[in-house]
Amino acid sequence: MKINVYAAYSHVLERDMKDATAIIVDTLRATSTMITALYNGCSQIIPAGEVDEVMQIARTLGSHAVLGGERDSNLIPGFDFSNSPLEYTRDRLEGKSLVMTTSNGTAAIMRAKNAKHVLIGALINDVAVARRALELGLDVTVVCAGNFGKMSLEDLITAGAIVSLMEEMTQPEPELDDMAKVAKTLYGLCAKDITGFLAGSLHYEELVKNGWEKDIEYCCRQGIMDIVPVYAEGIISV
Amino acid sequence: MKINVYAAYSHVLERDMKDATAIIVDTLRATSTMITALYNGCSQIIPAGEVDEVMQIARTLGSHAVLGGERDSNLIPGFDFSNSPLEYTRDRLEGKSLVMTTSNGTAAIMRAKNAKHVLIGALINDVAVARRALELGLDVTVVCAGNFGKMSLEDLITAGAIVSLMEEMTQPEPELDDMAKVAKTLYGLCAKDITGFLAGSLHYEELVKNGWEKDIEYCCRQGIMDIVPVYAEGIISV
Repeated sequence: MKINVYAAYSHVLERDMKDATAIIVDTLRATSTMITALYNGCSQIIPAGEVDEVMQIARTLGSHAVLGGERDSNLIPGFDFSNSPLEYTRDRLEGKSLVMTTSNGTAAIMRAKNAKHVLIGALINDVAVARRALELGLDVTVVCAGNFGKMSLEDLITAGAIVSLMEEMTQPEPELDDMAKVAKTLYGLCAKDITGFLAGSLHYEELVKNGWEKDIEYCCRQGIMDIVPVYAEGIISV
Repeated sequence: MKINVYAAYSHVLERDMKDATAIIVDTLRATSTMITALYNGCSQIIPAGEVDEVMQIARTLGSHAVLGGERDSNLIPGFDFSNSPLEYTRDRLEGKSLVMTTSNGTAAIMRAKNAKHVLIGALINDVAVARRALELGLDVTVVCAGNFGKMSLEDLITAGAIVSLMEEMTQPEPELDDMAKVAKTLYGLCAKDITGFLAGSLHYEELVKNGWEKDIEYCCRQGIMDIVPVYAEGIISV
């Protein structure tokens, strides 16, 4: 089996998506938030590109809809939740449908629409998503959301964690493309102190500047949630 | 000053090109070959996208034109040179105009046409190109040619070498984007044995399979040529 890694969703080549299992990674913070919401009883997530689209979908869903996401890392006016996973608690989410838009994560998910399977990954579910991708038996393409067309270090580290776990879990060794090798090498360097390694990286510093340090700490915990959200027919659910 | 690194030319965002010095890197082998050709007395190089275009330009130039490049890493029928830098010797090149097309390197150069300055870099001129980029005083964007839209490890290592050298040569420290940090980190891991680190990477293995080991060995020697080819108005020269 092959594992490909793309450092930003806009880089993805269709040939590595078709007939593959895609794992979408936006560790700070969209996919960490989605995993947390579904873990805490949210019934489904509907990703949307634009704020207007979120409003329109929410109106159709009626009273059990809640709105989440960010622009420039912060709460969108009129929304129930920002993109902070720590806000997505069970008491506010159980049984609700979450309509969500973020700057890169939701676009990355939609970019993978031609994959056979689309899984939602982050550090907090790295073990579970690696295991599920192997069970599905296809080639795997890890799509880092990135930051407006550029690589964001936390996503590449997460891809590296997933690649390393998949290598440990299977024989014969998967065939890695060059970016998968780089991701694995980087993760090997920083597995013991991911937040320390991220200091100075662009999106990390932007989040710190906006007061989201606790989110970073949470999003860098590995394998704490044993669920794998799946995107299919416009809906993310477990 | 800022240093950005792009892992493949198709990833480049225009905002990092405008008003910047671009360094184009296709270590295996297009930029290594161009540097070698100019070092060995070639008067100018005209990069072209397609084989037909090479033929047409060569006809215009007349008897002092020679043709070089590759498709699938090998000689193009009717051409004087393949993409092997070891073929580009002084006795065959002095005073000649080289018209050249390669799979990724020439396209990467043309992608940088909006940069203020476009320099040609590789491991063999890493010290010279780092010094020249600093002298020009602008932000720097290193464009790895890559391999048909995907990152090719040798280019990212070369970018890392150039970033490391620029950091050593200047104060205050340049501001690095996330890919520049990754490139620098990787180079730090393999500086003592670049060819060993490249074993198993996709393009390296393709070249080995086609019998080009000596080219790899040559292209991984650092700082052996003290020239910096410049691309301007369709021509590469020193």
